[in-house]
Amino acid sequence: MSDYKAFRVELADKIAHVQINRPDKINAMNADFWREIIEIFQWVDDNDAVRVVVLSGAGKHFSSGIDLMLLASVGAQLGKDVGRNASALRRKILELQASFNAVDNCRKPVLAAIQGYCIGGAIDLISACDMRYCSVDAQFSIKEIDMGMAADVGTLQRLPRIIGDGMMRELAFTGRTIDGNEAARIGLVNRTYEDQEALLAGVMEIAAQIAAKSPIAVRGTKEMIRYMRDHRVDDGLEYIATWNAAMLQSEDLRLAMAAHMTKQKPEFAD
Amino acid sequence: MSDYKAFRVELADKIAHVQINRPDKINAMNADFWREIIEIFQWVDDNDAVRVVVLSGAGKHFSSGIDLMLLASVGAQLGKDVGRNASALRRKILELQASFNAVDNCRKPVLAAIQGYCIGGAIDLISACDMRYCSVDAQFSIKEIDMGMAADVGTLQRLPRIIGDGMMRELAFTGRTIDGNEAARIGLVNRTYEDQEALLAGVMEIAAQIAAKSPIAVRGTKEMIRYMRDHRVDDGLEYIATWNAAMLQSEDLRLAMAAHMTKQKPEFAD
Amino acid sequence: MSDYKAFRVELADKIAHVQINRPDKINAMNADFWREIIEIFQWVDDNDAVRVVVLSGAGKHFSSGIDLMLLASVGAQLGKDVGRNASALRRKILELQASFNAVDNCRKPVLAAIQGYCIGGAIDLISACDMRYCSVDAQFSIKEIDMGMAADVGTLQRLPRIIGDGMMRELAFTGRTIDGNEAARIGLVNRTYEDQEALLAGVMEIAAQIAAKSPIAVRGTKEMIRYMRDHRVDDGLEYIATWNAAMLQSEDLRLAMAAHMTKQKPEFAD
Amino acid sequence: MSDYKAFRVELADKIAHVQINRPDKINAMNADFWREIIEIFQWVDDNDAVRVVVLSGAGKHFSSGIDLMLLASVGAQLGKDVGRNASALRRKILELQASFNAVDNCRKPVLAAIQGYCIGGAIDLISACDMRYCSVDAQFSIKEIDMGMAADVGTLQRLPRIIGDGMMRELAFTGRTIDGNEAARIGLVNRTYEDQEALLAGVMEIAAQIAAKSPIAVRGTKEMIRYMRDHRVDDGLEYIATWNAAMLQSEDLRLAMAAHMTKQKPEFAD
Amino acid sequence: MSDYKAFRVELADKIAHVQINRPDKINAMNADFWREIIEIFQWVDDNDAVRVVVLSGAGKHFSSGIDLMLLASVGAQLGKDVGRNASALRRKILELQASFNAVDNCRKPVLAAIQGYCIGGAIDLISACDMRYCSVDAQFSIKEIDMGMAADVGTLQRLPRIIGDGMMRELAFTGRTIDGNEAARIGLVNRTYEDQEALLAGVMEIAAQIAAKSPIAVRGTKEMIRYMRDHRVDDGLEYIATWNAAMLQSEDLRLAMAAHMTKQKPEFAD
Amino acid sequence: MSDYKAFRVELADKIAHVQINRPDKINAMNADFWREIIEIFQWVDDNDAVRVVVLSGAGKHFSSGIDLMLLASVGAQLGKDVGRNASALRRKILELQASFNAVDNCRKPVLAAIQGYCIGGAIDLISACDMRYCSVDAQFSIKEIDMGMAADVGTLQRLPRIIGDGMMRELAFTGRTIDGNEAARIGLVNRTYEDQEALLAGVMEIAAQIAAKSPIAVRGTKEMIRYMRDHRVDDGLEYIATWNAAMLQSEDLRLAMAAHMTKQKPEFAD
Repeated sequence: MSDYKAFRVELADKIAHVQINRPDKINAMNADFWREIIEIFQWVDDNDAVRVVVLSGAGKHFSSGIDLMLLASVGAQLGKDVGRNASALRRKILELQASFNAVDNCRKPVLAAIQGYCIGGAIDLISACDMRYCSVDAQFSIKEIDMGMAADVGTLQRLPRIIGDGMMRELAFTGRTIDGNEAARIGLVNRTYEDQEALLAGVMEIAAQIAAKSPIAVRGTKEMIRYMRDHRVDDGLEYIATWNAAMLQSEDLRLAMAAHMTKQKPEFAD
Repeated sequence: MSDYKAFRVELADKIAHVQINRPDKINAMNADFWREIIEIFQWVDDNDAVRVVVLSGAGKHFSSGIDLMLLASVGAQLGKDVGRNASALRRKILELQASFNAVDNCRKPVLAAIQGYCIGGAIDLISACDMRYCSVDAQFSIKEIDMGMAADVGTLQRLPRIIGDGMMRELAFTGRTIDGNEAARIGLVNRTYEDQEALLAGVMEIAAQIAAKSPIAVRGTKEMIRYMRDHRVDDGLEYIATWNAAMLQSEDLRLAMAAHMTKQKPEFAD
Repeated sequence: MSDYKAFRVELADKIAHVQINRPDKINAMNADFWREIIEIFQWVDDNDAVRVVVLSGAGKHFSSGIDLMLLASVGAQLGKDVGRNASALRRKILELQASFNAVDNCRKPVLAAIQGYCIGGAIDLISACDMRYCSVDAQFSIKEIDMGMAADVGTLQRLPRIIGDGMMRELAFTGRTIDGNEAARIGLVNRTYEDQEALLAGVMEIAAQIAAKSPIAVRGTKEMIRYMRDHRVDDGLEYIATWNAAMLQSEDLRLAMAAHMTKQKPEFAD
Repeated sequence: MSDYKAFRVELADKIAHVQINRPDKINAMNADFWREIIEIFQWVDDNDAVRVVVLSGAGKHFSSGIDLMLLASVGAQLGKDVGRNASALRRKILELQASFNAVDNCRKPVLAAIQGYCIGGAIDLISACDMRYCSVDAQFSIKEIDMGMAADVGTLQRLPRIIGDGMMRELAFTGRTIDGNEAARIGLVNRTYEDQEALLAGVMEIAAQIAAKSPIAVRGTKEMIRYMRDHRVDDGLEYIATWNAAMLQSEDLRLAMAAHMTKQKPEFAD
Repeated sequence: MSDYKAFRVELADKIAHVQINRPDKINAMNADFWREIIEIFQWVDDNDAVRVVVLSGAGKHFSSGIDLMLLASVGAQLGKDVGRNASALRRKILELQASFNAVDNCRKPVLAAIQGYCIGGAIDLISACDMRYCSVDAQFSIKEIDMGMAADVGTLQRLPRIIGDGMMRELAFTGRTIDGNEAARIGLVNRTYEDQEALLAGVMEIAAQIAAKSPIAVRGTKEMIRYMRDHRVDDGLEYIATWNAAMLQSEDLRLAMAAHMTKQKPEFAD
Repeated sequence: MSDYKAFRVELADKIAHVQINRPDKINAMNADFWREIIEIFQWVDDNDAVRVVVLSGAGKHFSSGIDLMLLASVGAQLGKDVGRNASALRRKILELQASFNAVDNCRKPVLAAIQGYCIGGAIDLISACDMRYCSVDAQFSIKEIDMGMAADVGTLQRLPRIIGDGMMRELAFTGRTIDGNEAARIGLVNRTYEDQEALLAGVMEIAAQIAAKSPIAVRGTKEMIRYMRDHRVDDGLEYIATWNAAMLQSEDLRLAMAAHMTKQKPEFAD
């Protein structure tokens, strides 16, 4: 792993631990953050030794969202023609979105472990992960509404598929803060943990379970669930049939079947 | 506001309170209702002074659904040719649907406050609102099944996006009545209140919070969530980028930012 | 009803009880199963006397999923050319999917009653039913991940519409077993029952309620909910308007209305 | 028919002749035009005596497109906040689009007869018609590109479905003028006529043929072709099956069949 | 091949020649026709020795469309309740559509060779084929409009993708007969031939060219073009990538490459 | 412009001339080609001085398609596990597709000028351009079918939107070579030129016309036509309304209007 300014990345036991690492700035998302996250998930995707990712934030908080300095610098670059400003802003937004698309499109499952503040852009980020877990003290807020803008890097696009439609609208219109227990009740997180330590231990354990599965099976499973978010059931059925037409010819099935018969734990190739 | 026969409409503190006002008929939806609701929501949309809508029912019940007199009069107009009857019925249904589309497409958030009966067409109506709140004594029932017909003004189209698929089908097939607590558990309402008074007070408070936000931000947020109900994530991301290309050039961002820095409450223009 | 090898089918009081009947094999899905289920649901669809279906498993368990003998026999038929194998496998998967599509597309509601194991292919099957009910001792697991493959007969396509997206991914990636209570909490089943006996009695009661409704109304309702799983709200509204253009000319409305007026129970023709 | 300022409307032999009637302004589309066209097509839709519409322009030219005065007045209403301007412009564009949607969604076929200039907004208009016919001297140009803007009332949305994609882009990027013969070659019009007189006679003859058909059959046919512009083949097949489930019970089939047997011309009710 | 009543089927040189064989009835489509065509195309799909299909009509005409006796018998089965009639008609239409879906979904290319009348249901049929060729004397007409109904077995769904939108509407609204030359000009057929003999020879030659290609390559190509009729470009690109992930591992590529190097004609396995 | 190995790139008069520059290899697409084309179109997109692109091939031929050496090297990297090979091949295909997506998604119009061979991958490439022009001696062939594979970098996805469906299938199944005149007749190219010199002069002239238009207008126009290839008419109308909400506030409209009034040629900022 190369050196990152906004992250710390570790790989152990086939689990990549990607940690936002600007604790003194409440892990605010600066220019480094947006650029490095693409590189990191490119590395995750290319590297067969990585089977699953845990995404967390260093310090007491997960993240306070986009760095206001960054926002200000974007505004400072605008000129006088509204049309050309619009062109430039549109490209900038698409560029920021690409950073979280890299998380969403990653071929390996991504588990978010959330403590403390998870605000604004941080909600956009965790909406792009596969699963979310938090400590009870977590505080979630779709803060963009209080910045005078509609969230534009993924919360409004991905979160309605995760939590109920009615509560989605309330949280987005009011910016109301919810804690870990309410987050679990509405399906934003899968489970809460007592504190940050228990959280990380718990998430690592789930990650370890996934890392032990056939990577062929995990990848196909993720691709299909991702696909179904936006496609019809009949298209999805045709897609998995086409996909498995190749994948069922893999060794992993025979290995899994043999292990099942002999009650042993199978070891799958990367 | 003009005079309405089936509604009472009040505007105060940027909140429009739209109340179905036929309490002696359990707020049954007659011809006046279907016509006036379009006019009212057109007025809401055109009037910048309205930032949020609260929709309620006068008296002990929210609404018993479509007025059976109206249904009977539609039947009475049918002739002898099945094909021409079908043409006429199709247009009539589309016309009724347009009344609730006006609610769904309204650019301002619409909060439903529900007590007592909320039956048949009333479910179609609240399914077109942004959020739903009720008193614990509320009684919800997809009553159309007992009228020998499939609901056709929105329940079957919008409710599956709001509550779980399995429970959706049970309620639609059986017409079973559920109370406020079950409604909250399955996500039909966001919260229950002890009684009608607490309900209206609570909903007004949430409405007031929304009314204080930037109208540019609220409108964009509603448009995006509405859009995502029917579109792909990638399309949604492109749409918000195009939308915000203009909206991020609004004063509201600077205002919000300045207020944030000075810890003051921003005042946004209508 | 003809004689089935893998099922027992009974029709009483307009309810067809379709029971997987290989209890000594934990109701594993063999070649007979996949072929007969199509015939049975074709019969259900063609037979106006059937108004609703209850699907259950004989013995202590609902089903352990696909019969491993069947899987092995598919593998044994593969040749040397990867491309031609892929063609053959793709067709085989589509053929198996067709068996559960027959359940999904059935014009009558299908209620699954689940006790004990409900594993692998059994999850694919119940995902194709309208509603699911279970005893508290039920055990659900998306077992395919442990066979080294992505589930390919419907779980990954249909279940994300039924349970929350975050929990969907956890269960699919880990294969974790959940019991009846957790299943109810995440919306996989509508309700739990104390034991198998109470379960069957309860489900039969719900089925009886549905069987008493207008078959015209039930069929339209199912078609619309099925349609909305994959279509836009505006398309859905246009579809029900076209559908009801014919169906509102049925006798069932007049019958239902008359019964409503006289407080009697209507009797609808098949 | 009421009195119109921008149009002359005549109804004879079940054909409504809708003529843009500002020949001294080259039939430029002013505020009256945009408002009245909605009223006219509402009347067409509501009036069973109208079976088909011919749309033409009075004088030597079909139309020079949107009136520049109207454009200027829109610009004059803009204020200082870019975001609020964007909101207002967006509504204004949607409002103008609604005028041509009324043509597109009209339940009766609309045949455009085009001579002389057909420029800018006029292309948007004819793209919303069912069929287009012209005299050889017609001159078509997607003029918006020369006004510094992308066409926004329908040309870019509807024309690509009518003419080839490659030529579509050339015409839209360059604003190049094409004559009647080239228009016929690329499929923009169905046929050319020698001069304006022959054009109107020819289009009236086609209209008369359509007016003699069963209105039930014509309406269904238009709805299906309109639907297929935006939907899948399988959805389209399901839609026509649902539609015809009612319409095949109409008298018109029996009438047509009887006429066919007796070699007579059937007379269909409106 | 089994014995068919409405068809004659021959297999030679990997080309199945499927001929409608009721010349004394102008190849009208009776009950045998609709049932047997499904069996025949099932056989085509299952039989690796068939690489391409030529579909023609015995005698002087291709086909006069649906047999009016069949239509009459459907009408005779209707009862008194409009709703139940609608249910029955909807199923019947879907059943007839399934016959032509079998042609459309066939994994091997289907070439139609058309002479004389090609009317009503015959247009629905050829719209479901891959390519169409005709003799100059062919006569095409969307005759359903003159039967008082909208075509409902595929013409209105598939033909707009094949010919231009404007001409599509003219032909569907007027039922106008066009000859072979006009059919070629609007893209309905790929080429015309002088007479029936030249037609069949020409089509057989094209079929022979296709039969000599890799069946893996032909099947993938057909699947992709079929898919694109209803899907987005980005979905199509992802689909072919998934498809070819297996198929590029086939022997056929190496065989084709070797043949290309040695300038020899490759022989592909079935 | 940096130095490219497979291309020569020149910028003059706001037109970027991108020329495939391996004439001694018939401009076969090697690894350099696939990588550099992304860099070039990234530069085009980022550089406001470029308003339009002309894409051509150096020497007597446009391009013979993918370099067979490259194909061979991909094959050489495959291992023993079919599933892992499939994973690797799928990623490789998606990577190659990305090269032509860069052309398709480029914000500036791309005009292809084609002489001599345009075969296999070259068809995939020109299908991703906005417009195509050729000399009469051009030779087009979807050659992949003769390599034992379905084309997988765009031809089967994009070409059906450009040429007629029936001819599309014939060309894809047979690999038949067509010349410039037939290409023009079926809409593959917009126009033919006598020879290569006339071709380049003609295409440069069209490019110059486009370069003189408002870049805001051209960009919006391209985005809308691109969008309509895959979206519904109503979605497209909403999209242009949102887009133009910002762009109509640009200076370019006022400039264009002023130039129109004074009959002068406007000069738009980059």
